[in-house]
Amino acid sequence: MRCLARLSSKALLVLCSLLALLSLLLWARCSRRAGWPGCSGGMWNFGVQRRNFPLIPTLFPCFSRAGVPLSTQWGPQGYFYPIQIAQYGLSHYSKNLTEKPPHVEVYETAGDGNSGNTGNNGNGEWTVPKGCSLTTVWDKSRLTGVKQFSCPESSEGVSLELNNGRDFIISFDLKLLSNGSVSVVLETTERNQLFTVHYVSSTQLIALRDRDIFYGIGARSSWSTLTRDLLTDLRKGVGLSNTKAVKQTKIMPKRVLRLVAKGRGFLDNVTISATAHMAAFFAASRWLLRNQDERGGWPIMVTRKLGEGFKSLDPGWYSAMAQGQAMSTLVRAYQLTKEPAFLGAALRATAPFKLPAEQRGVKAVFMNRHDWYEEYPTTPSSFVLNGFMYSLIGLYDLKETAGEKLGKEARLLYERGMESLKAMLPLFDTGSGTIYDLRHFMLGTAPNLARWDYHTTHINQLQLLGSIDDAPVFREFVKRWKSYLRGGRAKHN
Amino acid sequence: MRCLARLSSKALLVLCSLLALLSLLLWARCSRRAGWPGCSGGMWNFGVQRRNFPLIPTLFPCFSRAGVPLSTQWGPQGYFYPIQIAQYGLSHYSKNLTEKPPHVEVYETAGDGNSGNTGNNGNGEWTVPKGCSLTTVWDKSRLTGVKQFSCPESSEGVSLELNNGRDFIISFDLKLLSNGSVSVVLETTERNQLFTVHYVSSTQLIALRDRDIFYGIGARSSWSTLTRDLLTDLRKGVGLSNTKAVKQTKIMPKRVLRLVAKGRGFLDNVTISATAHMAAFFAASRWLLRNQDERGGWPIMVTRKLGEGFKSLDPGWYSAMAQGQAMSTLVRAYQLTKEPAFLGAALRATAPFKLPAEQRGVKAVFMNRHDWYEEYPTTPSSFVLNGFMYSLIGLYDLKETAGEKLGKEARLLYERGMESLKAMLPLFDTGSGTIYDLRHFMLGTAPNLARWDYHTTHINQLQLLGSIDDAPVFREFVKRWKSYLRGGRAKHN
Repeated sequence: MRCLARLSSKALLVLCSLLALLSLLLWARCSRRAGWPGCSGGMWNFGVQRRNFPLIPTLFPCFSRAGVPLSTQWGPQGYFYPIQIAQYGLSHYSKNLTEKPPHVEVYETAGDGNSGNTGNNGNGEWTVPKGCSLTTVWDKSRLTGVKQFSCPESSEGVSLELNNGRDFIISFDLKLLSNGSVSVVLETTERNQLFTVHYVSSTQLIALRDRDIFYGIGARSSWSTLTRDLLTDLRKGVGLSNTKAVKQTKIMPKRVLRLVAKGRGFLDNVTISATAHMAAFFAASRWLLRNQDERGGWPIMVTRKLGEGFKSLDPGWYSAMAQGQAMSTLVRAYQLTKEPAFLGAALRATAPFKLPAEQRGVKAVFMNRHDWYEEYPTTPSSFVLNGFMYSLIGLYDLKETAGEKLGKEARLLYERGMESLKAMLPLFDTGSGTIYDLRHFMLGTAPNLARWDYHTTHINQLQLLGSIDDAPVFREFVKRWKSYLRGGRAKHN
Repeated sequence: MRCLARLSSKALLVLCSLLALLSLLLWARCSRRAGWPGCSGGMWNFGVQRRNFPLIPTLFPCFSRAGVPLSTQWGPQGYFYPIQIAQYGLSHYSKNLTEKPPHVEVYETAGDGNSGNTGNNGNGEWTVPKGCSLTTVWDKSRLTGVKQFSCPESSEGVSLELNNGRDFIISFDLKLLSNGSVSVVLETTERNQLFTVHYVSSTQLIALRDRDIFYGIGARSSWSTLTRDLLTDLRKGVGLSNTKAVKQTKIMPKRVLRLVAKGRGFLDNVTISATAHMAAFFAASRWLLRNQDERGGWPIMVTRKLGEGFKSLDPGWYSAMAQGQAMSTLVRAYQLTKEPAFLGAALRATAPFKLPAEQRGVKAVFMNRHDWYEEYPTTPSSFVLNGFMYSLIGLYDLKETAGEKLGKEARLLYERGMESLKAMLPLFDTGSGTIYDLRHFMLGTAPNLARWDYHTTHINQLQLLGSIDDAPVFREFVKRWKSYLRGGRAKHN
């Protein structure tokens, strides 16, 4: 109900449904990997954490300087996986709708006065060592006061006392005039040792030296907001260690002691909060905006071999699921900001739906008759069910938001896809569960049965699609597929 | 091995395999009905009997005067079901190959002297009442002595003492010159009451009056052999009773007392034996020969509604399974007799394979690509797996026997069908069992799971097809489908 109150239009009915769906999705996806392997582990393990600690929804293993997760699922070097990034954004979007607003502690607003919901006045206690300077200046572009700092990199740096033992999401606005860094000193559960996380103006992704963890955040020569989960950044950094001196999976921050700035630049709006869902959502949305290529796609830069009998997908492939979930994300960013760039990107994302796999598209055709959008545009086609349904949800979101004219292409793609889905659903039904894809038919092998979590995902997706299309097939399949969860079976002859 | 010794050519490898296959088939088919419902029950219950009494393989519920079973499965009035008749013939063909020759008691050879393997001299003890005559005469067409009888229908009739308490298959050669009858008097287990089974020259199928059971056997104005299972004929007759005076399912003949002939005609070669497999086989083969229509088919004269969502098949429909199993039967009759009529009928039986259901054919096409031969040529198509595989076995038998030129059409149909089978097999695999047909895909419903006996039939058919086509798909599917019988499951993702 809350989401209905905030948003209007039939399209946004889907948003409500997505809440239930996405948490499920994350849960489904994550269990590919068990345990908590730190940064070297799977990309989906934040989902595992969600399952174990449902009240701590923002533990993400690997993050880039853009504030979006970095995957190591299919390649140890780490790569951006647009599906993961879109899901990350959508998940936070949903949580923002359903969770209470978080507690926020404000440390520095450079005299703007409004201290938010804390007793703090927003004018932090700074320590400025010799050879450094810190002043409050007016920023014309932002129409607000900001802190200007200048401090050699060899010095201790200017330091803002934080002393927060409650929450671990730090956020600040930053603009650098030279190379520089913002560091956060943490007291940890590991024998009360201090660890420092350095956000430095370089392009390196991540590094660990002793108890110093480094994240490259790029030049930051214009204003941007940096929002970081210090728990994740601490664990990810420690996870790089080759020694067993620290138990990677157990270390936690106990207290955020202080923030330290070096180099020359500006800081504003330093806060610590329990969550920062919209920051995460926009980090994902802006990443999608920046990383869409000239073909409208988000190329995936790792080799993907779906299984025996399939040719490998070479780096640079597109995924209908990524395209669709990016649409769902961008459309929401557009609705919130009205920035045309978000809608434009979502509209351009339809392009790969019109091309077959051989032309780097995501379209497959089943038996010369049914168009399908491939999560993995393999040769031969694989017809992965859950990825296809996510792509249909994305097309639906887009056509509803873009309107009749701009959204025409999305609507046609959606309608053709829905026709295929209705016709082909029975092929995924074993009478006691579901099948993940159609590789058995394409390769002449055993059916690739869906694990129960994917089966549950299938049900939730069908339920969502049934809420926007009243074809009886959705109701009937949802009912039967749910019965399988309770041990039900289709009749035998 | 025994069948290999008798028959040669690669084609006949199939015969051996068929042995295992057919017994399974019968078992699979029969269990549609439980119990022994007498003539009013299902057509397949002879299979049930086989299961309970594997050493008494010739108990058939309903028989026509042609000596082939009569079905009441889908219509209480009784009708000829060519699949049942062909299976009946093939089953006896197989048993003749594998079982020991039966004990035969010879009662009358009209002086030919050879008494077979019994102590009897083949010259029976006759009682000839006043007003009747019985003489031994020479039959020019048969080049043998035969018994000529003449006896008013109102009299007691001439009577041959049999007094056999061991076996219950009676056989005799008969030619009638007027209306007449041959009757067999049985002592039964039902309070030692006497029942008489009358085989009369009429077209009526079956009737019961008190303890007299009547089977119309037609005019019989030229020589033919009548072979009857007296156990079946007794039970089927008693089964017509509306009273509960006799427990239908329990009555048994205890002793065959005597044979009685009335009217004017000739008798020869009166025997009683435990089994008469080749008689049954030829009864089936000749029935098929006589009942093939001008389109090469064996029309099935009952309405068949396969299930919700399918149009009914109106009486007169053809079945690819009937066509195929008729081929398998006729080809064997041809091999034994070299009568060209058998091969000709088998060749003509390919005609319905070339026509779609709308034109009374049995051909369906899956997704515009794969030809399929329908056990039930429904609208929409149903793609029943086991019936299709039986039709392929029939086409194989035919092409191997007919040779390159005559068998060309059968070969092409076989090859196209095998292609389809290899491509479509995965659609029948649930990962823990098999699906009976593709109605779920055609109608958008739940999969129609195959019972375990049909699953076993699928396996045996694949095993047979794998013995004539070495495509790995057969080996792999047989292995996996067998594993399902032991609780195995395909992998999940």
